[in-house]
Amino acid sequence: MKKIRVAIVGAAGYAGEELLRILTRHPQVEIKIITSRQNAGKDIAEVFPRLAGTGLTFSMPDVNRILAECDTAFLALPHGLAAEFAEPLMRGGIPVIDISADFRLRSLEKYKQYYKVDHPAPGLLKDAVYGLPERYREQIRKANLIACPGCYVTSVLLPATALLHAGLVSPENIIVCSLSGVTGAGRKVDLPYIFPECNESMRAYAVSAHRHLPEIEQELAVAAGVDSVTINFVPHLVPVNRGINSTIFMNVTDKFTPEAAAAAYQEQYGNDPFIRFLGNGKLPDTKHVTLTNVCEFGFVHDKHTNRLIVCSCIDNLTKGASGQAVQNMNIRFGLEETTGLL
Amino acid sequence: MKKIRVAIVGAAGYAGEELLRILTRHPQVEIKIITSRQNAGKDIAEVFPRLAGTGLTFSMPDVNRILAECDTAFLALPHGLAAEFAEPLMRGGIPVIDISADFRLRSLEKYKQYYKVDHPAPGLLKDAVYGLPERYREQIRKANLIACPGCYVTSVLLPATALLHAGLVSPENIIVCSLSGVTGAGRKVDLPYIFPECNESMRAYAVSAHRHLPEIEQELAVAAGVDSVTINFVPHLVPVNRGINSTIFMNVTDKFTPEAAAAAYQEQYGNDPFIRFLGNGKLPDTKHVTLTNVCEFGFVHDKHTNRLIVCSCIDNLTKGASGQAVQNMNIRFGLEETTGLL
Amino acid sequence: MKKIRVAIVGAAGYAGEELLRILTRHPQVEIKIITSRQNAGKDIAEVFPRLAGTGLTFSMPDVNRILAECDTAFLALPHGLAAEFAEPLMRGGIPVIDISADFRLRSLEKYKQYYKVDHPAPGLLKDAVYGLPERYREQIRKANLIACPGCYVTSVLLPATALLHAGLVSPENIIVCSLSGVTGAGRKVDLPYIFPECNESMRAYAVSAHRHLPEIEQELAVAAGVDSVTINFVPHLVPVNRGINSTIFMNVTDKFTPEAAAAAYQEQYGNDPFIRFLGNGKLPDTKHVTLTNVCEFGFVHDKHTNRLIVCSCIDNLTKGASGQAVQNMNIRFGLEETTGLL
Amino acid sequence: MKKIRVAIVGAAGYAGEELLRILTRHPQVEIKIITSRQNAGKDIAEVFPRLAGTGLTFSMPDVNRILAECDTAFLALPHGLAAEFAEPLMRGGIPVIDISADFRLRSLEKYKQYYKVDHPAPGLLKDAVYGLPERYREQIRKANLIACPGCYVTSVLLPATALLHAGLVSPENIIVCSLSGVTGAGRKVDLPYIFPECNESMRAYAVSAHRHLPEIEQELAVAAGVDSVTINFVPHLVPVNRGINSTIFMNVTDKFTPEAAAAAYQEQYGNDPFIRFLGNGKLPDTKHVTLTNVCEFGFVHDKHTNRLIVCSCIDNLTKGASGQAVQNMNIRFGLEETTGLL
Repeated sequence: MKKIRVAIVGAAGYAGEELLRILTRHPQVEIKIITSRQNAGKDIAEVFPRLAGTGLTFSMPDVNRILAECDTAFLALPHGLAAEFAEPLMRGGIPVIDISADFRLRSLEKYKQYYKVDHPAPGLLKDAVYGLPERYREQIRKANLIACPGCYVTSVLLPATALLHAGLVSPENIIVCSLSGVTGAGRKVDLPYIFPECNESMRAYAVSAHRHLPEIEQELAVAAGVDSVTINFVPHLVPVNRGINSTIFMNVTDKFTPEAAAAAYQEQYGNDPFIRFLGNGKLPDTKHVTLTNVCEFGFVHDKHTNRLIVCSCIDNLTKGASGQAVQNMNIRFGLEETTGLL
Repeated sequence: MKKIRVAIVGAAGYAGEELLRILTRHPQVEIKIITSRQNAGKDIAEVFPRLAGTGLTFSMPDVNRILAECDTAFLALPHGLAAEFAEPLMRGGIPVIDISADFRLRSLEKYKQYYKVDHPAPGLLKDAVYGLPERYREQIRKANLIACPGCYVTSVLLPATALLHAGLVSPENIIVCSLSGVTGAGRKVDLPYIFPECNESMRAYAVSAHRHLPEIEQELAVAAGVDSVTINFVPHLVPVNRGINSTIFMNVTDKFTPEAAAAAYQEQYGNDPFIRFLGNGKLPDTKHVTLTNVCEFGFVHDKHTNRLIVCSCIDNLTKGASGQAVQNMNIRFGLEETTGLL
Repeated sequence: MKKIRVAIVGAAGYAGEELLRILTRHPQVEIKIITSRQNAGKDIAEVFPRLAGTGLTFSMPDVNRILAECDTAFLALPHGLAAEFAEPLMRGGIPVIDISADFRLRSLEKYKQYYKVDHPAPGLLKDAVYGLPERYREQIRKANLIACPGCYVTSVLLPATALLHAGLVSPENIIVCSLSGVTGAGRKVDLPYIFPECNESMRAYAVSAHRHLPEIEQELAVAAGVDSVTINFVPHLVPVNRGINSTIFMNVTDKFTPEAAAAAYQEQYGNDPFIRFLGNGKLPDTKHVTLTNVCEFGFVHDKHTNRLIVCSCIDNLTKGASGQAVQNMNIRFGLEETTGLL
Repeated sequence: MKKIRVAIVGAAGYAGEELLRILTRHPQVEIKIITSRQNAGKDIAEVFPRLAGTGLTFSMPDVNRILAECDTAFLALPHGLAAEFAEPLMRGGIPVIDISADFRLRSLEKYKQYYKVDHPAPGLLKDAVYGLPERYREQIRKANLIACPGCYVTSVLLPATALLHAGLVSPENIIVCSLSGVTGAGRKVDLPYIFPECNESMRAYAVSAHRHLPEIEQELAVAAGVDSVTINFVPHLVPVNRGINSTIFMNVTDKFTPEAAAAAYQEQYGNDPFIRFLGNGKLPDTKHVTLTNVCEFGFVHDKHTNRLIVCSCIDNLTKGASGQAVQNMNIRFGLEETTGLL
């Protein structure tokens, strides 16, 4: 079988490094192009010594070369910039797998509100499929623009949407409290992210203002079959490299029982290779999922408040970004969904 | 001025070590007795090398000796055991400052429900004063049994009770999500707490079952002037040594404005030396409070849900345990409240 | 091709977990038996949730069952215990890959001196091959007892023996200073290894008394072609999960030039897939090798003392233990050496 | 008693922050001026929230104002810049306590070799006293320019010079292997120091090229009474915030016995409040000294190589920088040496 020839645009950040980690071992992929404006011309070993021996070299991004040599392109770029590349690549006929935020929100207004700029390519939104395979697998199979979900978003949607879809929890008064490792901030050279400022520190940030908030709300509404959902979302920065832990508070409906919740998960995710529902009363740990594409979760039904508390863990760079992107590629190109991801 | 002669009963755990750190520098204190069954006879330098030079030696706990030589005793013991010591020490006429959980809950029933044993000394409960100085200072001045609050509890009560008391937030539907460093688990030698099991790990635990839950509810009810309050409380373990970050979600009342909240804090805590209210929109960080007795907090009013989100940080061993205990001692013995704590 | 059926004896420690991580993805291996006295009967997911889905269950160790069902056995046991299993398994006709220390030292006297017990199976020593593939590959191909090197030892021998062998450095006055992550201590539940005792701590230990010392000396002597070598070796514990960094000080001989050293590495390791020599003046980092079977190293020739300083990094659990064990299995069973290890 | 009025020039880095931590609690000090070009005009709480309440504000550095208002100035500046301030301040008549590297080396040549620039103020060198109180206390009492030692240097000199001075170890073939926490790199915003690049990483750096190397050699030679000493020095970066652990390999002389070494320490440091010699066979831990001004050390005599291995720990920011600077101020101004440092 012919290998899929891929380009990674913006390969020098943490999402790019994680794509490289996965794709250099993927049996059906040939990495043809890795780009980085800042590192163009450098051997990969200079930037990521772990990947010495893969023989790759960074180049300047070049749409024509990608179109000539590749079957697909991953965009691991800042928002705004991703849209600039998506358009000509799609026009050139190859499917684009976007890890940026540019095509996740359906609402141009929300995009502007949270990203503080006008949407850079509104015309492409109609082609964008939301790249959460466990909920949009069929659309992904034929998508030409796959908008991979945000990391926090993935950790929340997987356990929450199944219960909303089954009518076991209410879409009202949902509260999410998330913890993330520092790679979630990107490979960003900024004072708050140097080691002594993060180590032995725990802090909430972007309270009610995080860019993943409208994305969570959008997809919870889809799952609940309602027009809109309004939640609280508070992310926290924690001194680990990788991992997200989300604790989700939801009001249960009259239909809720722990057994019904377990059945909903079984029905909706029973065949999903990257879902690990631990069961009623069992709680996940990020160290069980780091460097994997798995979302691990469990719940506790708090009878004295009649609220359901779901705890969910993913690796922010794998299932929260690059692993999920590869999962989408596998689906889009008709491969076994787990190829290169186990 | 004559120094206060103190005993530390159970001085070999982390709360004991923190008491030693503070009291060895306290200008008005003479540490007379430090006890540890396991380390009796050992020089302090063998257990805590930092404290070499203080000349202290661990001994077996001996109530009569404490009564003969000391003016007060700190109990840094497991629950149940603390009550055993409190009774004869109080009968012997010295005030007891208890860091354990034995005298925090007013309800014997809740004690049994959460601690799984009958209360060991119900007769003493009427003498116990809840040792949160910012709310019970006057009672502490004459208390003979001071029940220092739990660490999570302190981080929640300080920012939340002031707003409840002022009627700016509702006592209903309060949700608390807390993060704690590993010293919060005590100096416990158990597989889940060894370094490789905690490092690079984030995990919720004791969801809706933590022993600090009924204590938070009890004191929120007092502040709100209602019979009972029912909350959700989810603690998380995070790989830092010290610190607690609590994120508290509360529904605001019609009276709420950010200015009114700031005014309530000013009115209730304006003279409190260990309260650092950062202001509207400002968020705390545990690294700003570790090794201090300060509670630092700020809030965000999320208009799209009309909920108030308060984030609060303390050092779990200082304001969350031993620092607060010393603050209580200072108050009880008529010293400046900050003595030895700045 | 028929898969190699393997047993992992002592699979519940960190070396066992790492064997499981590698072997569950190894395309030519079928894990038949995993043993743990303490966890016998438990599903693997209870002990290592990451490995849920592999369908494995811990059992009590049973030599007869291993001989009936397996082609080889990995021993991830404490020293002393490993010898008890090695003997009947070898007699039963399957090659044994031992990660313990029982068959590394040729000298019974040194074994007794450093392990404080008589050697448990001196009769087997003649069959033992030292499992450092880069130096003993041919012997490993037909070995029935492969004694995998210690973790510190591997990090020192790979860069040092090649230079000794080439006569570029002197076997006299070698000094080694090593740093290790906490998994190096095993999955040990002991006060010095709980999180708050390791975090924010750096400490030397077992100075001139570490069990890896005689093993390093033995193999340096072999490489140098001398009767014995005497070194200083000081290990340090550092708050990371994985990784060893060894800094090796050696006196250069008259033949030494940086080019000659590079040539020696090229000659001796030019085809070795897990050796990454960075070059003159380049220094390794443990984060480049964690979770890989690679040994990365570089050197600096300090002209003002005329000493060579070699810095070397491995993952203590992979190249330092289980990865190397699998590399040995691959060699012993005629597979590509890198199978399952890239 | 009149308080010492101090200026801290360059107060926004980690050494500055540590000076502030110590001096805000120092009973004989009034902080008059804190400078930072970058933060001039900012309240201290904006830069260091822990220090909110001290009422300090950053200003632009202004020599005339310092001379008008202060009795002494601490320079916590990069090398080169420190010399620019030292000259006018000294001329203006106040003693200068310099934490930079500008006045540590006696040799202009070595300064140029290691700092890559000509010495900025060679005329001041004759006035500079090396600020290691345990060895230069009498000179410090009347010094007008105190050059506080480097952090690594302090950790090495304290245990090593006493033995050299007593003739118990040889000044030849000394090898030093040090580990440092990340604050040692300063509050530097650079890719290698962001959290994910340091966490789970151990790496040697500046092998045989570190700027502290000639400083260690200079002072070892003084202690040994020889013209020059030549050593190997390899620093390593380790993921902790604070602390240095130095392991020092020295050849013993015929006079050496463990008892003689202990006696030498007793004789030379018996009255020194910040020296904690643990004894023969005892090893230090950085966690015992962080946030203190103590140097803790012990040794092992390795009989099989006849080398002495000394392990030494300090807090790089306290005894390694700002604590030692305050100790020097105390000496210079005739205060009890430990004032503000216990």
